[in-house]
Amino acid sequence: MKKCVILVSGGMDSVSLLHYAVNSLKVDEVYALSFDYGQKHSRELKEAKWNCDKLPQVKEHRVLDLHFMKEILQGSSSLVGDVIDVPDLENISDADLDQPITYVPNRNMMLLSLAASYAESRDCRQIFYGAQAQDEYGYWDCTVDFLDKMNQVMSLNRRKGVEILAPFVNKSKGEVVDIGFENGVDFAKTWTCYRGGEKPCKTCPSCVERELAFQKAGKLDPLIK
Amino acid sequence: MKKCVILVSGGMDSVSLLHYAVNSLKVDEVYALSFDYGQKHSRELKEAKWNCDKLPQVKEHRVLDLHFMKEILQGSSSLVGDVIDVPDLENISDADLDQPITYVPNRNMMLLSLAASYAESRDCRQIFYGAQAQDEYGYWDCTVDFLDKMNQVMSLNRRKGVEILAPFVNKSKGEVVDIGFENGVDFAKTWTCYRGGEKPCKTCPSCVERELAFQKAGKLDPLIK
Repeated sequence: MKKCVILVSGGMDSVSLLHYAVNSLKVDEVYALSFDYGQKHSRELKEAKWNCDKLPQVKEHRVLDLHFMKEILQGSSSLVGDVIDVPDLENISDADLDQPITYVPNRNMMLLSLAASYAESRDCRQIFYGAQAQDEYGYWDCTVDFLDKMNQVMSLNRRKGVEILAPFVNKSKGEVVDIGFENGVDFAKTWTCYRGGEKPCKTCPSCVERELAFQKAGKLDPLIK
Repeated sequence: MKKCVILVSGGMDSVSLLHYAVNSLKVDEVYALSFDYGQKHSRELKEAKWNCDKLPQVKEHRVLDLHFMKEILQGSSSLVGDVIDVPDLENISDADLDQPITYVPNRNMMLLSLAASYAESRDCRQIFYGAQAQDEYGYWDCTVDFLDKMNQVMSLNRRKGVEILAPFVNKSKGEVVDIGFENGVDFAKTWTCYRGGEKPCKTCPSCVERELAFQKAGKLDPLIK
């Protein structure tokens, strides 16, 4: 019996990962975790639920209420709260590419810590996480080094050590699109745009990356009509 | 200007740390953080607030609502929820001393991650944390090794790296009582008992440790009449 926790934001990477884990890696029992932290793009949570409901291997899908994040962040990220707008990718200066305004302070360590607690409580020894090489350009907490060091912390656990695995960390976003299609992902049921509109804005950093990924994979994005 | 985040649970260690930081270490600006995670001993939060209100150096005191912890823990710790009772110390077997039932899976990594996000948002580079050597007997996430490895993760931050400091980690609980008295702590305004009663139960692991600490320091505990 293979069981694990999977972080499912509802974006293209995590939804592809969910399907990859179930179909290619043959995980039988998935404990899926999503986070409602007041993100402008909360539509992704709807897509996370749709995908989790569809797969019988998902035994439990929890959406944790992390609205306290607004309190602690107070205008320090463009993804949360009303203070800062999400920038267009072309308006992010080179100097900011090591940490764009879409960075949420220490977010991934928070989310992975919660996932590790959840995993330990459900007797899962592995967390699957959709961090992906391209994310590295801006976020220190998407790097291989970050994951290694997180695993070093958790290896100290005296009983139920939990390990974070990021199968896509060395893949390009184009390859993730390929893997998604191979594993039956319906990309119309994934959400990527950082802005909270009805349709993808096509200009924010994630929309631009998504478009490039589909181009590289030679596929059409069903969200773009 | 010395500024920092301090984790203030309302227990004797964290309240002593708060006073020590302000009075001995001369920290001018404190961002205090407490957590409401449905702990049975939520009375500690009242004491945390009392102490933060008293000190003008505390610029902000946030109590984060972490009730989602009940959802992810589901009966895997005696400190949260109604499933498992808090045991008397004498009923914890030697085999369980490396991880008693009072252990909350991955709690400290969760709480410190939130604190680091808060620190980064408030432009603080240091988090003060009341981990203390005696806690080590049961909790992997109270050890020096744990803190070192957490700091290694956070040192990867490309801009505002945050460091966790635990000034009491090599002190005994008796020494912490001494430090508390030297720095003006009113121990009647700290709460330690894991059970949720009106008065300390005197038999749970934390009550027993508290009593021993006061004995070692040669002081009377104002909570015990």
